[in-house]
Amino acid sequence: MKIGKATTPSSAICTSDEDTIVVRGRDLCAEVIGKLSFTEYFFLLLTGKAPTKATLKVLDATLVAITEHGLVPSVQAARMTYAASPEALQGAVAAGLLGCGSVILGASANAGEMLDEVKQRMSSGKSLQDSARDVVSEYRAARKPLPGYGHPLHKSRDPRVSALFNTASEAGSDLSYVEIAEEIEKVIPEIVGKPLKLNVSAAIPAVLLGAGFPLQALRGVPILARSAGLVAHLYEEQQSPIGFALSYQATREYEYTGDMPSND
Amino acid sequence: MKIGKATTPSSAICTSDEDTIVVRGRDLCAEVIGKLSFTEYFFLLLTGKAPTKATLKVLDATLVAITEHGLVPSVQAARMTYAASPEALQGAVAAGLLGCGSVILGASANAGEMLDEVKQRMSSGKSLQDSARDVVSEYRAARKPLPGYGHPLHKSRDPRVSALFNTASEAGSDLSYVEIAEEIEKVIPEIVGKPLKLNVSAAIPAVLLGAGFPLQALRGVPILARSAGLVAHLYEEQQSPIGFALSYQATREYEYTGDMPSND
Amino acid sequence: MKIGKATTPSSAICTSDEDTIVVRGRDLCAEVIGKLSFTEYFFLLLTGKAPTKATLKVLDATLVAITEHGLVPSVQAARMTYAASPEALQGAVAAGLLGCGSVILGASANAGEMLDEVKQRMSSGKSLQDSARDVVSEYRAARKPLPGYGHPLHKSRDPRVSALFNTASEAGSDLSYVEIAEEIEKVIPEIVGKPLKLNVSAAIPAVLLGAGFPLQALRGVPILARSAGLVAHLYEEQQSPIGFALSYQATREYEYTGDMPSND
Amino acid sequence: MKIGKATTPSSAICTSDEDTIVVRGRDLCAEVIGKLSFTEYFFLLLTGKAPTKATLKVLDATLVAITEHGLVPSVQAARMTYAASPEALQGAVAAGLLGCGSVILGASANAGEMLDEVKQRMSSGKSLQDSARDVVSEYRAARKPLPGYGHPLHKSRDPRVSALFNTASEAGSDLSYVEIAEEIEKVIPEIVGKPLKLNVSAAIPAVLLGAGFPLQALRGVPILARSAGLVAHLYEEQQSPIGFALSYQATREYEYTGDMPSND
Repeated sequence: MKIGKATTPSSAICTSDEDTIVVRGRDLCAEVIGKLSFTEYFFLLLTGKAPTKATLKVLDATLVAITEHGLVPSVQAARMTYAASPEALQGAVAAGLLGCGSVILGASANAGEMLDEVKQRMSSGKSLQDSARDVVSEYRAARKPLPGYGHPLHKSRDPRVSALFNTASEAGSDLSYVEIAEEIEKVIPEIVGKPLKLNVSAAIPAVLLGAGFPLQALRGVPILARSAGLVAHLYEEQQSPIGFALSYQATREYEYTGDMPSND
Repeated sequence: MKIGKATTPSSAICTSDEDTIVVRGRDLCAEVIGKLSFTEYFFLLLTGKAPTKATLKVLDATLVAITEHGLVPSVQAARMTYAASPEALQGAVAAGLLGCGSVILGASANAGEMLDEVKQRMSSGKSLQDSARDVVSEYRAARKPLPGYGHPLHKSRDPRVSALFNTASEAGSDLSYVEIAEEIEKVIPEIVGKPLKLNVSAAIPAVLLGAGFPLQALRGVPILARSAGLVAHLYEEQQSPIGFALSYQATREYEYTGDMPSND
Repeated sequence: MKIGKATTPSSAICTSDEDTIVVRGRDLCAEVIGKLSFTEYFFLLLTGKAPTKATLKVLDATLVAITEHGLVPSVQAARMTYAASPEALQGAVAAGLLGCGSVILGASANAGEMLDEVKQRMSSGKSLQDSARDVVSEYRAARKPLPGYGHPLHKSRDPRVSALFNTASEAGSDLSYVEIAEEIEKVIPEIVGKPLKLNVSAAIPAVLLGAGFPLQALRGVPILARSAGLVAHLYEEQQSPIGFALSYQATREYEYTGDMPSND
Repeated sequence: MKIGKATTPSSAICTSDEDTIVVRGRDLCAEVIGKLSFTEYFFLLLTGKAPTKATLKVLDATLVAITEHGLVPSVQAARMTYAASPEALQGAVAAGLLGCGSVILGASANAGEMLDEVKQRMSSGKSLQDSARDVVSEYRAARKPLPGYGHPLHKSRDPRVSALFNTASEAGSDLSYVEIAEEIEKVIPEIVGKPLKLNVSAAIPAVLLGAGFPLQALRGVPILARSAGLVAHLYEEQQSPIGFALSYQATREYEYTGDMPSND
């Protein structure tokens, strides 16, 4: 039995023979290793083009901004997994990445789509303010959350937001999505009835889209960033284990709400 | 029931409150975002110290060297997974990383341990050549493979090896592990009976250990690197799917070797 | 920093002390081990109730129906992962399960929701035929695929469908969702313009919902079933490896569509 | 580039065409669905043979014994993952399985190897007691832990042990590995200096090896069992979420041990 389509697999990313590895049209060994930083190379692999200086600055800043935020659930899951399966570091990193889904880190990509919707309204002649109001109102009407606004810990603005916006501004990167993100923040109180401040999940697409990062690839940014954070945590876990201690603490006040056997 | 130890979890990596995120003793927003590259930050998170220029150069080069090598098994697994589960990019990246184990990318860490064993012999006064010979002979006697030597495709030396060694040399990084790696390559023919050339898995620890990267954290390097390659492949998969085509091709000549039902 | 909610974790599934493990109100060692089959226990853990004989028969049949279907993409991904990382069987199973997503095995849960929508229309007095027509028409209008109808290989009806329906019928299980599934199959040609036959993904919820299996838990059924199939494949992989051969075959006709370096 | 071997993939597990699915020589739809339980089918897929009644009884009992043990680390990791990524149930199950590694559930397979070593000594004529003593002494000399003996919670014998041994005995299954396991328990105090009671990880191979379950496939048993437990927990998580509450509790007493920024 054959599963899948009878087509020939192709890719524009890499080819190689015994002597040469070609990536995106460049000789890996002659033109890339030692010449490009890891971040520059990531952008090249993803888009086929080397980043400009401004784009590189912005991409490095966004990766740095979300690499690490302490013992968040995905880091806890990874450290518990490593404690139980120290033979497979890759499994513990994978377990941590599996928590980079829609609720937490996936919000960046959703926020990017919202910003892009506003941008599209503007390209048909509507003002920034009206476009932002329309999109926020439509999200509210459809009872969709506003991705990238509000944060359980940072009730005022998430401090990473300004750091990212300043970096984009100093790098001379396009700020049009930043303006959109800030306009959305401004119109939220009147439409939603309470202030929801920009958090890092909206700031990331705001600066990345302006820097030419593809909208459809946004979900990959937190995943790559967290891989670095997870590797750091798992190295610490190897040296100073807390995986099982986290698990102990988590259930210290555990309540069983089911039935007990009747002892007849 | 409590699982795990009754100890308090601690970590030296990150803390935060409503206004500030502190990573390795630095204010993330004031001192890190926009100031450090992703690679610099990775080294800081992992070791607690900022990398020197030479270390940064070498770490970037090693990450770049192993980020991508075409449609290797782990990339195929990731693209098939994404084709079947496009709602979960994180799952496809995780599936790809799960193939970064002992046989393929895990060889870097094992090679690092072998280089380090030679180094330790030397620190007790033995010559480089004798130390290399002893360690290679012991691996052979124990029937252990020599991790980082030999490659199915690159029968002569993997071209990434020279690129990494040149980068380390130009950056002014410590080359003592590079010398060890080359000495091992020299003594292999007489001991093993055939030439096994240095491949990228031995070159990575050779340059990284000289640059001050922790031996115990080597396994994390290919995992982080491949995350970037996987994100690039999965973005291409989203735009130009081949996941099911790979699966079709893989079983075009499939043979079922079991029994068939008897049609009585 | 605290992530998450300040509430006390509770669960109705299990509690234990030094002498006793209680699951869903029963003493695991005195009342469950050796008394319940694995399938009965799965239903008990999931719902808190032991299955009736009819429910058990149907649940066993559905699990059996989707445990195995040859070298499908998720099995290929798992075998490639195991070949690269033989130290971590759990990682290879996980890689295989990560392909049990929305496109392939996730269709069962989506089909269950479609059947349930028809059921709900009927409970407000509409006829089976009208309810089925309305729901299929609405899916078409919204350009949503009809989950569980059509199959790339089994152009006529998937043979597993009748086997499941017969099992449910012989077991005396409620067949009302089976009737809904068959009515949908009947109305498809006029609405869609081509016949799309019931496949196993619609047959599974058709029999399971009638057997009292919770709609919201349907996604777990193929995941559990495939775990068994993956363990069998990975045991065969350990004894007769084909993981790398699959990868080789998959790229035999690979085409690189990117640029080549200019050799100036 | 081609990765992998130029061989044709083959498998003895399954083949299919448009009308028939054949598994291990049987017609899935005519001979398996509705006829075999999930556990019987798992054994058939794995070994190519249907289990005897005694083997089925023992295999069901072992699967049941380790499906569930409350909010253990892998369940916590899975529930945290699901809370963050509810769009991907398969990812949360995978995250949980990734913790089924060497330290916790992997012990079953290691214990099986230890029992088998004793069995092999006996087959060369040595007594049960001497064989057990020799193997335990060798493990101690090599500073290897004794897998399957001792338990953090169940200081006396894990109650699942007797339940499994009784099931095997009542089913008329071969008890020779059970005798080995109990002999090891007897000789431990004199060799190790303290009593380490049989736990479920040694009891599982003790009954399964006697029932004809393949030694090399033991690692798959807890993985399959835990898949069922994880699906039950994740269904409860969907209905009554505690994933983020677990994470909150885990870090309530978190201590940051790194430096703080100097505020100059």
